[in-house]
Amino acid sequence: MKHNFGAGPCILPQEVFKEASQAIIEFNDTGLSILEISHRSKAFEAVIEETEALVRELLSVPAGYSILFLQGGASQQFAVVPMNLLPQTGKAAYLDSGTWASKAYKEAQKFGIVQVVASSKEANYTYVPKNFEIPADAAYFHYTSNNTIYGTELFETPKSPIPIVCDMSSDILSREITVSDYGLIYAGAQKNMGPAGVTLVIVKDDLLGKTGRDIPAIFDYRKHIEAKSLYNTPPVYAIYVSLLNLRWLKAKGGIVEIERENIIKARTLYDEIERNPLFKGTAAVEDRSRMNVTFVMENPELEKAFLTLAEERGFVGLKGHRSVGGFRASIYNALTITSINALVDAMQEFAEKNA
Amino acid sequence: MKHNFGAGPCILPQEVFKEASQAIIEFNDTGLSILEISHRSKAFEAVIEETEALVRELLSVPAGYSILFLQGGASQQFAVVPMNLLPQTGKAAYLDSGTWASKAYKEAQKFGIVQVVASSKEANYTYVPKNFEIPADAAYFHYTSNNTIYGTELFETPKSPIPIVCDMSSDILSREITVSDYGLIYAGAQKNMGPAGVTLVIVKDDLLGKTGRDIPAIFDYRKHIEAKSLYNTPPVYAIYVSLLNLRWLKAKGGIVEIERENIIKARTLYDEIERNPLFKGTAAVEDRSRMNVTFVMENPELEKAFLTLAEERGFVGLKGHRSVGGFRASIYNALTITSINALVDAMQEFAEKNA
Ligand SMILES: Cc1ncc(COP(=O)(O)O)c(C=O)c1O
Ligand SMILES: Cc1ncc(COP(=O)(O)O)c(C=O)c1O
Ligand SMILES: [Mg+2]
Ligand SMILES: [Mg+2]
Ligand SMILES: [Mg+2]
Ligand SMILES: [Mg+2]
Repeated sequence: MKHNFGAGPCILPQEVFKEASQAIIEFNDTGLSILEISHRSKAFEAVIEETEALVRELLSVPAGYSILFLQGGASQQFAVVPMNLLPQTGKAAYLDSGTWASKAYKEAQKFGIVQVVASSKEANYTYVPKNFEIPADAAYFHYTSNNTIYGTELFETPKSPIPIVCDMSSDILSREITVSDYGLIYAGAQKNMGPAGVTLVIVKDDLLGKTGRDIPAIFDYRKHIEAKSLYNTPPVYAIYVSLLNLRWLKAKGGIVEIERENIIKARTLYDEIERNPLFKGTAAVEDRSRMNVTFVMENPELEKAFLTLAEERGFVGLKGHRSVGGFRASIYNALTITSINALVDAMQEFAEKNA
Repeated sequence: MKHNFGAGPCILPQEVFKEASQAIIEFNDTGLSILEISHRSKAFEAVIEETEALVRELLSVPAGYSILFLQGGASQQFAVVPMNLLPQTGKAAYLDSGTWASKAYKEAQKFGIVQVVASSKEANYTYVPKNFEIPADAAYFHYTSNNTIYGTELFETPKSPIPIVCDMSSDILSREITVSDYGLIYAGAQKNMGPAGVTLVIVKDDLLGKTGRDIPAIFDYRKHIEAKSLYNTPPVYAIYVSLLNLRWLKAKGGIVEIERENIIKARTLYDEIERNPLFKGTAAVEDRSRMNVTFVMENPELEKAFLTLAEERGFVGLKGHRSVGGFRASIYNALTITSINALVDAMQEFAEKNA
């Protein structure tokens, strides 16, 4: 048995895989594979409508916000957000809390003035900057709620005099949020929403159409809103698998229940990292992510041996990102407490042998 | 049994569905679903390398051309092509042969001057314009090789004094082409290459980097070339299913064999349309597409009854696009001659009953 701690694309529930596999052979009772149905068919319209409705329900998305399923990944949103929200002579404010946050503001610089309100770069992004000031004259404030690479997470939405744009790629659907705190939320699906190939955007309608830019149709959120994510051929299968995953989340009790489990999973692992004399966390304690747990060894020379043990035990994706080193356990929604316990056991055994 | 004549996403071989379904449960011997593996894993690197190699082999792509697997569909290329190839003060030339061709040049107009060299719009795009002149001072000449909606196809690459950019979304991999005739080829996968969610781009490297534009990284072909289509998370599964489909195509004899079959399939259906007193084609005979066969009834009042019969027989996707009316039989690579014969039989029976 594998324990998939990969950072994304990542583990999804086994039940989802089963149904996803079946739909490739025959989708519902269409007599067709999900891969060969028209995106304009009634069968697919029902899929996209239910997917949207489930996102709306699970995240309590209020009226006045549209929900879109787009292509290009979160990286594409780094450019598409300023296209849609940054006036040609305007300014945007960004928080620099990690690699993705930094890429986001660098792309925005191609569209206008960017003010970086704070950065933890000089500390290798081990913490999330706090007590920064958001300029009231910027068009929007952008931050990354979970820094996938560095294992830090911002649980409290900053107070902001301007609309907030948030990259929630790696913690969306893992905990409760208040959508009305945001002007725009985006997330590559390939962590907690579904497989790679679709990107979720939740946008407040009345922010759009104010930049004075002649936006290419495919990058204009308004075109996708009008067309209900069917402006052009959508990533049919990635949306369908997301639907299966959202159904799974709803059936198990929704965000309230998954957040409860995620808290227990993260606490179990962080407790062991603290307790275990061989390991230590890399992120500031108050900013520790519930999704990506980054840790190293007090004695780096032992890291290779632990990775070998991890592989023997069927742990996948535990190697840390090269920017941090050591280990990263990504413990997304579908990762079970069983896998967490297996990792804790391995850490304890390893500590005994190497005491 | 269904006969899937849908225009795209469309039929793929049954063998492909079978293997594609299995990989959702377990991919090769990884112990993981293809949906949960990292795009940076060795297992997926092997997938993308083989997919690229097969495109290169099947289409005889010469050295000096890169092959990319991107997101956003062909519609996204309508904007990304001029971003990469149209200098800020430059001009591009476009042929207007259908709905998609027209959308392509309208997006290019957002990036510079567009000269439409010829248009068949006034004739509802029933033919492909010929004998137009391509201006030597434009950066590139863009055309659509197969007009999916109107059922016309350009089999001969125009002679051009400037690089040619071609939207081959609906006829790529259906017949032999000479890649060196082109500067750039793009195609949404969801006809002959694979499922929706991935877009193929074949680009001549030395055309890039000449616009003076500060292109967002995600839209810069050079970034994707450098990263071998792994600049950001790619649409893993759509690429994998494309690989399965390309393997199928190679195993059955490659482009030479599929082109031979496609000629027979198209001829069989067009012959019946001509012969049958109830039906007539809508496209100019010399420009008839081998991929999308558009036809109507001499007596439009009978069309509904024929559609009903078609549905009873398990024909899917036969209704014509609203811009043309009547019927459109999309007869892509994976559609068998058996399905063509079933359609011809139905047309003959219908004619006998309604003589
Ligand atoms: C927080 C965050 N933002 C953006 C990205 C980039 O996403 P994509 O690969 O979909 O472009 C990632 C990828 O892991 C991420 O974790
Ligand atoms: C020739 C052609 N170009 C472009 C498109 C648009 O493709 P997409 O939906 O992938 O953007 C289509 C869609 O059918 C097409 O047939
Ligand atoms: Mg990061
Ligand atoms: Mg410790
Ligand atoms: Mg057309
Ligand atoms: Mg006839």
